[in-house]
Amino acid sequence: MSPLPTFDDVLEAARRIESLIKRTPVMTSRLINQAVGAELFFKCEHLQSAGAFKFRGTSYVMTRLTPEQRRAGVITHSSGNHAQALALAAQRVAVAATIVMPEGSNPMKRTATIGYGARVLTCPNTQADRESACQQEMELAGLHLVHPYDDERIIAGAGTATLELLEEVPDLDAVVTPVGGGGLLSGSILAARGETRVYGAEPTGADDAHRGIAQGRRVTDQHPETVSDGLRTCLGVLNFAIIHPGAAGIGLATDEETLSAMRLVHARTKQLIEPSSAVPLACLLNGSIPARGRIGVVISGGNVDLESL
Amino acid sequence: MSPLPTFDDVLEAARRIESLIKRTPVMTSRLINQAVGAELFFKCEHLQSAGAFKFRGTSYVMTRLTPEQRRAGVITHSSGNHAQALALAAQRVAVAATIVMPEGSNPMKRTATIGYGARVLTCPNTQADRESACQQEMELAGLHLVHPYDDERIIAGAGTATLELLEEVPDLDAVVTPVGGGGLLSGSILAARGETRVYGAEPTGADDAHRGIAQGRRVTDQHPETVSDGLRTCLGVLNFAIIHPGAAGIGLATDEETLSAMRLVHARTKQLIEPSSAVPLACLLNGSIPARGRIGVVISGGNVDLESL
Repeated sequence: MSPLPTFDDVLEAARRIESLIKRTPVMTSRLINQAVGAELFFKCEHLQSAGAFKFRGTSYVMTRLTPEQRRAGVITHSSGNHAQALALAAQRVAVAATIVMPEGSNPMKRTATIGYGARVLTCPNTQADRESACQQEMELAGLHLVHPYDDERIIAGAGTATLELLEEVPDLDAVVTPVGGGGLLSGSILAARGETRVYGAEPTGADDAHRGIAQGRRVTDQHPETVSDGLRTCLGVLNFAIIHPGAAGIGLATDEETLSAMRLVHARTKQLIEPSSAVPLACLLNGSIPARGRIGVVISGGNVDLESL
Repeated sequence: MSPLPTFDDVLEAARRIESLIKRTPVMTSRLINQAVGAELFFKCEHLQSAGAFKFRGTSYVMTRLTPEQRRAGVITHSSGNHAQALALAAQRVAVAATIVMPEGSNPMKRTATIGYGARVLTCPNTQADRESACQQEMELAGLHLVHPYDDERIIAGAGTATLELLEEVPDLDAVVTPVGGGGLLSGSILAARGETRVYGAEPTGADDAHRGIAQGRRVTDQHPETVSDGLRTCLGVLNFAIIHPGAAGIGLATDEETLSAMRLVHARTKQLIEPSSAVPLACLLNGSIPARGRIGVVISGGNVDLESL
């Protein structure tokens, strides 16, 4: 296991990516506050470049590549936001990016990834096929792997979203983020440096973080069933090592609760967010995360396909 | 015909509603600019209270009611954004509002209107039935009618959106707004006081403004067929009197072009806007409004029903 990143790594990431990323706005809604019974501050990472917080981590990786890695190019496997985020971050600094995408990927996301200048390779849909296709291409072409969450640079970069939120809104009682692979949640825990409680929010149909914390060991046997496509993965190794001791708790919400929270956000703010991004609000509404005081909520992304709605 | 409102009325409206409305942000997108070949500045009235610029006019009306009118309450007939805007503006100042809605109205809009504390009366779907039901109730209960666009206060209030845009973005070459009844377009023409060209954007399936300007007289025989439900009405009397001499031109876009513009806005900005609000961008893309220089575009509203998408 690589050494765990720290608060200082989040600060360093913030400094290095400042000119590359958008400082996203913080949004509030009186009517959502009334519905929840707490004062919520939404950090709008759906308005980040490439439509998700992921662009922070991939941008930070670009600033940390060695000259050899820059020349060789980067690779990852992803069907989602990490693919677009890596493609765009690489394009901005003229590094070649290869993305291995499963053949069942959303055509819009594939088009967007190609639009950001990446080379897209198609592989079969299983996790094993994705990993082996990626590994093979990586070795063949000498590419540098950028894992979507189990990477200390990606974690530090993701943490900068919560760092900005804590800077902008003083005296938060808690911060809530969705949790899939755990990049955003672990980075947020580092950013809060033990001074603010940080909760993860997870779909009931992909509750490996909740089970893993209860059992004291990382859960890797999961058959995810959830509409929150960004949260189907299991926690990474580095991520679990930070989240297990550091998270104040993991809330759970059903898909029905999540879609209802997504509709509430749209009705009250006109913001169309991904189902994954609505899980924190769903957990505050169903009480699986305590809704008291002033709470920061990271809206992780907004890459919804209008046609599929 | 009432006396036509002037630039000074827009200034007066801006002063009176300043503390009641939201000063909405101006948004830009490098990639939309590339697609259009001009520099666009979107005034985000979909983020206005009640989800549309309409709240400006109805708020201004509230500040101009006589004590008798305040006591009696207000009434209108509307199936759309004006209903919600009047209900909310009246609720904020504790004036009773009655809204006559056709029985075919969107249930979500009806629920929102009731949620803003209005009394909702249901009538048959035809325009004649709406008007007679409204007239009857108005006389019966002594209510004060607030027309959705053919009212000098509503026009002055609507103009404050463009006034803010012109204040915030100097040196605009043109401003474009959608045109249905003509409240927003006529108010914007007043706000620009002849110093900036103002274009209207209209669906090909409801092109009464385009035809009316060509013929030099208001067109009232229209059988609208368009997805832009906010633009199905014909120009009002006051509105035509301002728009006929004042508009730099009326662009036309098909529904297909409008929906494609709506998707472009979503893809590039994550903002989900009403079809009506996408007509200006569609006209800039299809060339029916000249796309040169720096252009302000008023996004009129964002009241899209997620379920109906």
